[in-house]
Amino acid sequence: MTDAPAPFTSDDYKARMAHAAGSAADAGLAGLLVAPGPDLVWLTGYQPTAMTERLTLLVLRAGHDPVMVVPVLEAPDASAAAGAPALTLRDWTDGQDPYAAVSPLLDTAGRYALSDSTWAMHLLGLQETLPDTSYAAVTKALPMLRAVKDAAELARVAAAGAAADAAYEEIKKVRFAGRKETEVAADLADLLRQFGHSQVDFTVVGSGPNGANPHHEAGERTIEHGDMVVLDFGGLKHGYGSDTTRTVHVGEPSAEEQQVHDVVRAAQEAGYQAVRPGIACQEVDRAARRHIADAGYGEYFIHRTGHGIGTTTHEPPYMIEGEEQPLVEGMCFSIEPGIYLPGRFGVRIEDIVTVTADGGRRLNNTPHEMAIVA
Amino acid sequence: MTDAPAPFTSDDYKARMAHAAGSAADAGLAGLLVAPGPDLVWLTGYQPTAMTERLTLLVLRAGHDPVMVVPVLEAPDASAAAGAPALTLRDWTDGQDPYAAVSPLLDTAGRYALSDSTWAMHLLGLQETLPDTSYAAVTKALPMLRAVKDAAELARVAAAGAAADAAYEEIKKVRFAGRKETEVAADLADLLRQFGHSQVDFTVVGSGPNGANPHHEAGERTIEHGDMVVLDFGGLKHGYGSDTTRTVHVGEPSAEEQQVHDVVRAAQEAGYQAVRPGIACQEVDRAARRHIADAGYGEYFIHRTGHGIGTTTHEPPYMIEGEEQPLVEGMCFSIEPGIYLPGRFGVRIEDIVTVTADGGRRLNNTPHEMAIVA
Repeated sequence: MTDAPAPFTSDDYKARMAHAAGSAADAGLAGLLVAPGPDLVWLTGYQPTAMTERLTLLVLRAGHDPVMVVPVLEAPDASAAAGAPALTLRDWTDGQDPYAAVSPLLDTAGRYALSDSTWAMHLLGLQETLPDTSYAAVTKALPMLRAVKDAAELARVAAAGAAADAAYEEIKKVRFAGRKETEVAADLADLLRQFGHSQVDFTVVGSGPNGANPHHEAGERTIEHGDMVVLDFGGLKHGYGSDTTRTVHVGEPSAEEQQVHDVVRAAQEAGYQAVRPGIACQEVDRAARRHIADAGYGEYFIHRTGHGIGTTTHEPPYMIEGEEQPLVEGMCFSIEPGIYLPGRFGVRIEDIVTVTADGGRRLNNTPHEMAIVA
Repeated sequence: MTDAPAPFTSDDYKARMAHAAGSAADAGLAGLLVAPGPDLVWLTGYQPTAMTERLTLLVLRAGHDPVMVVPVLEAPDASAAAGAPALTLRDWTDGQDPYAAVSPLLDTAGRYALSDSTWAMHLLGLQETLPDTSYAAVTKALPMLRAVKDAAELARVAAAGAAADAAYEEIKKVRFAGRKETEVAADLADLLRQFGHSQVDFTVVGSGPNGANPHHEAGERTIEHGDMVVLDFGGLKHGYGSDTTRTVHVGEPSAEEQQVHDVVRAAQEAGYQAVRPGIACQEVDRAARRHIADAGYGEYFIHRTGHGIGTTTHEPPYMIEGEEQPLVEGMCFSIEPGIYLPGRFGVRIEDIVTVTADGGRRLNNTPHEMAIVA
């Protein structure tokens, strides 16, 4: 692809690490501990070639320089990461206790935010080595750490969304009837890559009754004339996520199918119209859910309305009842209500939306009308 | 591929779950808690389509039937798993507390083994909801849970090894000089898939100085005439792992290169000759390491000698100083000593070996001589 954005620099990573350490201090924490995963990529640009049982841990504390503890045989790769100039590497060797290598870097009576997907075996190792420290998952302690995107990040999320939209425009042209869901899913994956995705995370093709399972991926079912088909797909382009859903129909829909689609479409619009800085995340969920409930389908909308997106495709903020976090300009998240009629069909419509100064802006812009496919 | 083995049945999974619950009880534990990952695949055949922040947890306790707690929207997929008939599903819905859903299934004062790669956020959630329970990583508490392979598993590990060997025989025929490491790595990945791998986990091509970084994958370096090249590759075939390393040379090696290769080759043989039921894992490491140290290269062998392999490519038992676990017939693990001369070159030779009634049997059987490539 020729549209690659300028890579993030070690100054970018330095600023992110300082922001994170400051956020931890503001939250009354001694610091932030980050194992390999999306938080580490965001903070340092470093992603080990494989996730293994060997401990890699970034230690961030306000007033201290960042230090990353790595297995000695991964030290060359770690030192090549874009953020490496902004931190100090400390290595440990097979046979040494990696938790003992971390402990001198910590205030042993402190409370730390810990990246969500840190392996439990490492948390147990830290708890055993440092019995007076305590921990909170970063999503609970610092949920909004990566939630507000800066301009360079927003451009990447928008570009990923545009690429997913381009894939949708093409997939509408392929043959559905008589082909397996997995075949259409493979077409979708090819299209996402063709439009610049480096990684395809999911290509849901839920035809007929399979559409009523919101997490069905794609199976051996042959798509038939008369099927409703849920298409939900996304992945990473230049390190940032896409995630969009449209529900299409093979041939003309029945009156009931059209009605359910209309309800979901209006619910998605209602969720979108609720977006503006300062309102609570749960208000987006409520707006979409209320519309579906009022139409009599409340019991068939069995998931939250949305999730944040950035260097992962599922992250805070969550659009869910009970989430009182106010929306902030620059946040990016999905709005994806659905109705699932068990054994029959499902409908879901999903856009990524970003919060602007006075409302929201969709980062997916393909038509919401139910497309008729062949 | 036409050589697919018979799938594991729900009776197979039932037996594994009973074995695991019994092993936990024998170790003085209240039970075993398993989140998505290789342990869950091994115990139930279930692998969620995506790893998300939503809790899925299998609860195994001696004297109780297995129960798996799943997010409601993943329940259809979970109930389709091969092991699902042998367990009870309990679902929870977005907005509910998943840890509260788990707690009635537990002896709240018990100690549990917990799968290593369970997300720390889930362990913290359990610790908060159930302050009197305690946990140990399954690798520490029940390290040998999956280590001894039965005949059906061993056949799969052997088939994966044979496929990797076939890939090696083909890769020796390709052009190395003048091509980038990443190009040879792509050839290796294609070959692994061609010989039946469903997943390629790593294709290390470490040429010249890159070979001196044991975890270098493959980079933009152009391979040159006169380079030593470490090739370390593997993945999953029919759900079980392959992992083999050979070090080849582009054109004729120097006397020093040949000597280092000879030392590593003899060290690998020494490790292999040490294998028999009843000896401690660390004896395999010591046998290989002693040979390298005696040859004067001890400081350049900077990792353990080997790791177990099965449904993952890195698992217990580990061949490392301090590991006193005795070898048991049916265990499968790598023996992979290496010498890494910083800034110059590296050599590693690796076979998967299984423990037999009276010794060991290699599951990789390509020649150990340094192959000369073009």
